[in-house]
Amino acid sequence: MKTPVIVINFKAYSESLGMHAIRLARMAEDISKETGVNFCVAPQWVDLRSVASQVQIPVFAQAVDSAVSGSFTGSNTIEAAKDALADGMLVNHSERRITLSLMSEIVSAAKTSGLVSIVCADTPKATAAACALNPDFVAIEPPELIGTGIPVSKAKPEVVTKAIEKVKSLNSLSKVICGAGISTEEDVAAALRLGTVGVLLASGVVRAKDPQSVMLRMAIATGAKE
Amino acid sequence: MKTPVIVINFKAYSESLGMHAIRLARMAEDISKETGVNFCVAPQWVDLRSVASQVQIPVFAQAVDSAVSGSFTGSNTIEAAKDALADGMLVNHSERRITLSLMSEIVSAAKTSGLVSIVCADTPKATAAACALNPDFVAIEPPELIGTGIPVSKAKPEVVTKAIEKVKSLNSLSKVICGAGISTEEDVAAALRLGTVGVLLASGVVRAKDPQSVMLRMAIATGAKE
Amino acid sequence: MKTPVIVINFKAYSESLGMHAIRLARMAEDISKETGVNFCVAPQWVDLRSVASQVQIPVFAQAVDSAVSGSFTGSNTIEAAKDALADGMLVNHSERRITLSLMSEIVSAAKTSGLVSIVCADTPKATAAACALNPDFVAIEPPELIGTGIPVSKAKPEVVTKAIEKVKSLNSLSKVICGAGISTEEDVAAALRLGTVGVLLASGVVRAKDPQSVMLRMAIATGAKE
Amino acid sequence: MKTPVIVINFKAYSESLGMHAIRLARMAEDISKETGVNFCVAPQWVDLRSVASQVQIPVFAQAVDSAVSGSFTGSNTIEAAKDALADGMLVNHSERRITLSLMSEIVSAAKTSGLVSIVCADTPKATAAACALNPDFVAIEPPELIGTGIPVSKAKPEVVTKAIEKVKSLNSLSKVICGAGISTEEDVAAALRLGTVGVLLASGVVRAKDPQSVMLRMAIATGAKE
Repeated sequence: MKTPVIVINFKAYSESLGMHAIRLARMAEDISKETGVNFCVAPQWVDLRSVASQVQIPVFAQAVDSAVSGSFTGSNTIEAAKDALADGMLVNHSERRITLSLMSEIVSAAKTSGLVSIVCADTPKATAAACALNPDFVAIEPPELIGTGIPVSKAKPEVVTKAIEKVKSLNSLSKVICGAGISTEEDVAAALRLGTVGVLLASGVVRAKDPQSVMLRMAIATGAKE
Repeated sequence: MKTPVIVINFKAYSESLGMHAIRLARMAEDISKETGVNFCVAPQWVDLRSVASQVQIPVFAQAVDSAVSGSFTGSNTIEAAKDALADGMLVNHSERRITLSLMSEIVSAAKTSGLVSIVCADTPKATAAACALNPDFVAIEPPELIGTGIPVSKAKPEVVTKAIEKVKSLNSLSKVICGAGISTEEDVAAALRLGTVGVLLASGVVRAKDPQSVMLRMAIATGAKE
Repeated sequence: MKTPVIVINFKAYSESLGMHAIRLARMAEDISKETGVNFCVAPQWVDLRSVASQVQIPVFAQAVDSAVSGSFTGSNTIEAAKDALADGMLVNHSERRITLSLMSEIVSAAKTSGLVSIVCADTPKATAAACALNPDFVAIEPPELIGTGIPVSKAKPEVVTKAIEKVKSLNSLSKVICGAGISTEEDVAAALRLGTVGVLLASGVVRAKDPQSVMLRMAIATGAKE
Repeated sequence: MKTPVIVINFKAYSESLGMHAIRLARMAEDISKETGVNFCVAPQWVDLRSVASQVQIPVFAQAVDSAVSGSFTGSNTIEAAKDALADGMLVNHSERRITLSLMSEIVSAAKTSGLVSIVCADTPKATAAACALNPDFVAIEPPELIGTGIPVSKAKPEVVTKAIEKVKSLNSLSKVICGAGISTEEDVAAALRLGTVGVLLASGVVRAKDPQSVMLRMAIATGAKE
């Protein structure tokens, strides 16, 4: 997956449900085409198939509940993500923590299915642990900053740099994304300066008055040119 | 919702994913039109919107994770079910047990949104407890029979009749569905004879060689005429 | 169990661990002897056996994880509570919610073992549901008041009175305890005036500067005489 | 902690509760003194304090629910284990899986408190992930062998050797224990031959007709002399 990357988690917000999901995904696609920056969107499961069929940017599931198909009720599977033409999935988001065992199964099954995995981790240690599973990306999210609007680059830059060091010292191929408190273009620029390959954010775009201009400013802040 | 009802839970089976979900739902719709028996289907979340837009029989979510929308990742909400034009949802399935507190919130929110709720319960006592929340239906599923192919009507008819008595003694308006071990038309007929208003089943239809003929035989077994 | 009752949940506070657990339990026992008011204490599992062996007032487990013994690791069972000479247990506390199915098994197994069960519920509806399981007590705790120090008797007296009405209308033998925001003797008196048979509280006693005098004032506020 | 080590998980068996816990722990202590092999026991929480006060061999909690003390109900904490004079704890047992985030917090807090941690993992990958948290031991337990009585040394020796290779390649100080299907002295010997420093077992000892002679044979099989 091309980097730098800006991943927008639609969460379970009303503002990003149904036709709003399509609208936001199209905005991201437009900005992506315009600026060459890789935008990804993670709609709710109810919108996964419709969004994936209508935009060409990468579309992610917010979580997967089971690595295998079968006799499970209410579970969202790898196979379902693949069938919906999703490109990947978030794994172990702080609002959907899973066991190490399930995380390992999901990352492996994702790889087998050709899907990209972004594993969320709260500390440099958890980042190192996640790397052992060889996900494509690890999103570092100091939990005390989630939803605060305080960017980790300001409040705890050392958490990000330590996570990156850990990954390098392990010779891991996983890339680090910055995932808490990102709400402005300055936060995006700071995240990249710290050595990450992108950002994971939600309300900063989804609940913005003008999501498209926020996305545009963030794209520009990555300094990327086509 | 019209009774008798035959609710088909698609679970997370490969056999009922994507275009198979549409195909099975259309079969159910055909049999429903032909026989007048109320068939409902519960596809995976990934298929909820597409199935609901393509058939006119009631479509159910297999589970809802949150009664409210908001800052949740990977959660399927009441609002999402409504937006997808679903008609209702299973609640507390044995493969997706939830707390009493969440169950209460979901059943209330479903009612407010005009959605039908089917709460699963494993014993007559749990059925009585569920009735306190006023769901539209309670599906009684003795856990030791789930997935066995042994119909509760044969193995434990008294569990079903006690559940129905409990509901009546509480003056509850909730209706009782029979939900474990149903795989043949005889099981459907027996479930109705015991006093339930329908059945909830999964593999008996989804993994049948000829799902349509199973559905037809079950519809006929309800003895219903349009 | 004699009423009115004052149940003190020791939670996982440092202030009520180990020798502090014994000390607090003895204080409660002293006040109980002095005033005739039934004090119960719910220490951590690590202290359950030692507390139960050293005081004569009722001792409760804070939670039980399994109704049966067997191949479970890290689970606290009914049999373990009984073996430790505990008198009962809290069930489904807001900090330890369980499924309806497990709740039902635990309340039944408690009864069989001669142990008292106090099921926590957050709303009048959940109280009614809990009553279907025939626990000895239901503790009503509006979740928005837990830990606030705002007594339900002031903030939401109607939640308590509705819960009591529900219980009566169901002809249930379960008694209602008031369980959120209790921190002063006025709160205890108000809870009893609303028709409950007692209170469930934690930090108001455990973290008080002088727990013994708080307990004494609460005992007096029940208006009970031996 | 001295190796080789034989860790006996008492689980929630009736056969290892209360006075049986004391009896089994004393047997293990006797064999330990006699043979010089390091036996550890992991009783239920209800017995943790009494066992730890009565034997001099290492005593482990089966699980910890929270790394910190505070307003939690029904949770067993690091501080409680320490207060009970336990020497360490199992973490993430297959019957008590926890999130990576909690695992990380618990292993850190254990270290700070001077307690030994044994993290359970089901695959070589999960073993590598666990090593990132620097626990004292990782117990490798292929889940398909748990409770089967089939020793991993026979059925899947490569799972154990791969786990050990992973640990070495990471320059981790964590030591590997063999933890599934161990029931005889041959299994113990085979586990050590594969390069592990010990075994974790439960029913093989706890439910044996003559636990003491099983323990003795296992001790001898380690080939250790005082």
